Amino acid sequence: MRFGIIGSGSWATAIAKILTDNGNTVNWWVRNNDTIAYIEKRRHNPHYLSSTYFNHAQLQLSSDIQAVVTASDVLVIAVPSAYVESSLETLSAQQLSNKKIVSAVKGILPSGNRLLNDYLSETFAFPLENYFTLLGPCHAEEIAAEKLSYLTFSGQQPTATAAIAAYFKTDYLNTVVNTDVMGVQYAAVLKNIYALGAGIAHGLEYGDNFLSVYIANSANEMEVFLHQSNDKGPFAEQSHNYNASVYLGDLLVTCYSLHSRNRTFGNMIGKGYSVKAAQLELNMVAEGYNASKCIFTMNHSIHAAIPIATIIYEILWEQVPAAQGFKKIESLLR
Amino acid sequence: MRFGIIGSGSWATAIAKILTDNGNTVNWWVRNNDTIAYIEKRRHNPHYLSSTYFNHAQLQLSSDIQAVVTASDVLVIAVPSAYVESSLETLSAQQLSNKKIVSAVKGILPSGNRLLNDYLSETFAFPLENYFTLLGPCHAEEIAAEKLSYLTFSGQQPTATAAIAAYFKTDYLNTVVNTDVMGVQYAAVLKNIYALGAGIAHGLEYGDNFLSVYIANSANEMEVFLHQSNDKGPFAEQSHNYNASVYLGDLLVTCYSLHSRNRTFGNMIGKGYSVKAAQLELNMVAEGYNASKCIFTMNHSIHAAIPIATIIYEILWEQVPAAQGFKKIESLLR
Repeated sequence: MRFGIIGSGSWATAIAKILTDNGNTVNWWVRNNDTIAYIEKRRHNPHYLSSTYFNHAQLQLSSDIQAVVTASDVLVIAVPSAYVESSLETLSAQQLSNKKIVSAVKGILPSGNRLLNDYLSETFAFPLENYFTLLGPCHAEEIAAEKLSYLTFSGQQPTATAAIAAYFKTDYLNTVVNTDVMGVQYAAVLKNIYALGAGIAHGLEYGDNFLSVYIANSANEMEVFLHQSNDKGPFAEQSHNYNASVYLGDLLVTCYSLHSRNRTFGNMIGKGYSVKAAQLELNMVAEGYNASKCIFTMNHSIHAAIPIATIIYEILWEQVPAAQGFKKIESLLR
Repeated sequence: MRFGIIGSGSWATAIAKILTDNGNTVNWWVRNNDTIAYIEKRRHNPHYLSSTYFNHAQLQLSSDIQAVVTASDVLVIAVPSAYVESSLETLSAQQLSNKKIVSAVKGILPSGNRLLNDYLSETFAFPLENYFTLLGPCHAEEIAAEKLSYLTFSGQQPTATAAIAAYFKTDYLNTVVNTDVMGVQYAAVLKNIYALGAGIAHGLEYGDNFLSVYIANSANEMEVFLHQSNDKGPFAEQSHNYNASVYLGDLLVTCYSLHSRNRTFGNMIGKGYSVKAAQLELNMVAEGYNASKCIFTMNHSIHAAIPIATIIYEILWEQVPAAQGFKKIESLLR
């Protein structure tokens, strides 16, 4: 299989490391020609995981997405969800036909509130059986440091999914395969909401006892949403273990990460900053912010009982004061 | 209800704070007369939570356990599991009849590998319907600081359990009631094993990605054990939400606590110390050490699939090298 990577952030760089460490040659789409020139000359990405050095011979860098797509059988999409559409807009359905796409996108596409597979299906008539996800609790920095991590590959067909996963298994990366290609994506979105909420709780000066209760109840709520969306989806006969790393593990690593944007952003909201002020101050948007609205909207059709996520949405989007919202959350926890 | 507290460690002191903050008078058994004299004079426990001051008028301190038992309707047992039997040995079945006992003991009694209720039943013919537990993710220091925490009260009869729990509900403490009086005790023991294992993983220099996968899989394994023991127990018709704070929440706060004895002890084992050397160096035994043997033995009759806990037992008790044990654990995680 010939792999192409779309994106050049820390996660894309980690994936390039994994695939090249496994002896693959990678077609790597990097938007910026200066970055390409730098990587070609210095053998590492100047902006992300800069301690990771590549073997020239295994990288085919290009800012021409058409060329990268044409040269690849499997495309790993690893750009932030907000940039997916602009990155792929010049492609055609024809160019993507017979390709496999692996999503390493950790959010919902803001335009249209869609998962990547929905966007691909609607825009390129791309079939779900050729769509896979690569998700799990995986700080890119630990991949760079070759600390053992676990990634879960999900797809409709276990054999095809396992075949792709096999290219990623290394000394420092174990791979897990499951068939819950929709659920893992919802989990990846939900976890950002709860992690942002954990940041708010921290800003409101709740302690570790409370945080553990909050996260345990968030895990439960995530499970409720996943069960309900699964039951309403096309694969209702399958059941999944929501304690696995791609669900609970990812929630834990995100909620307990002290340095994540969700945590920092939430902390400011908890301290009383408005969303606008926090965004200006931090010059960024935390994933959980958009995620809370996406899930709130999406839940109009799924109807899962997710009061914690709903209250965090209300704090972020409907001007409910953080302290007041968390008083309501307090009364829900068990 | 007249409350008596047996024990004077940090957890017993936190419970004395909660009950007196709620306006109760407490009969408090403290073994050491010097400590009693100190508390009576200075209004705080010199050894634990020393920032917590008591109102004299609400404390009846005594080193005479008979007197404390006689004066109380509800006895809260809050001594380390290793000292329960020596603390209670002078009591008679007669003295305990018609009392209610609330266990705040977080382990298994080492002699006979028994839960406190089994010991009470065998020694004093104490009936399970008068036995309750008070457990959950609750660092005593955060109770002292009045950081909002959650405690779960468990008992066979919900009404009686709720009646006791009501005496503990304060501004900084929310109470939860459930009927899984056996399961919550197993969970309190299991969590220490997994937390000790988290310490070993840290000592072996696994990172945060791995830790989250390990803890998620530990949560799953705990659930497997609790399901299986519940199915084999006398209350098999009841089902419980194992994501609740007394199960998953307590596992999280214990595994992620950087300062726990389990973590410190496990870390040394991971660094290559023998169990003996770690015990000598630290001058203490981590709860997870005995817990691993208790659960291993207990599982001879429960037959739950708990490979992680079993491997930690083998590392601690059967000289399996930590790195080798964790190689096996690596292969199990999903």
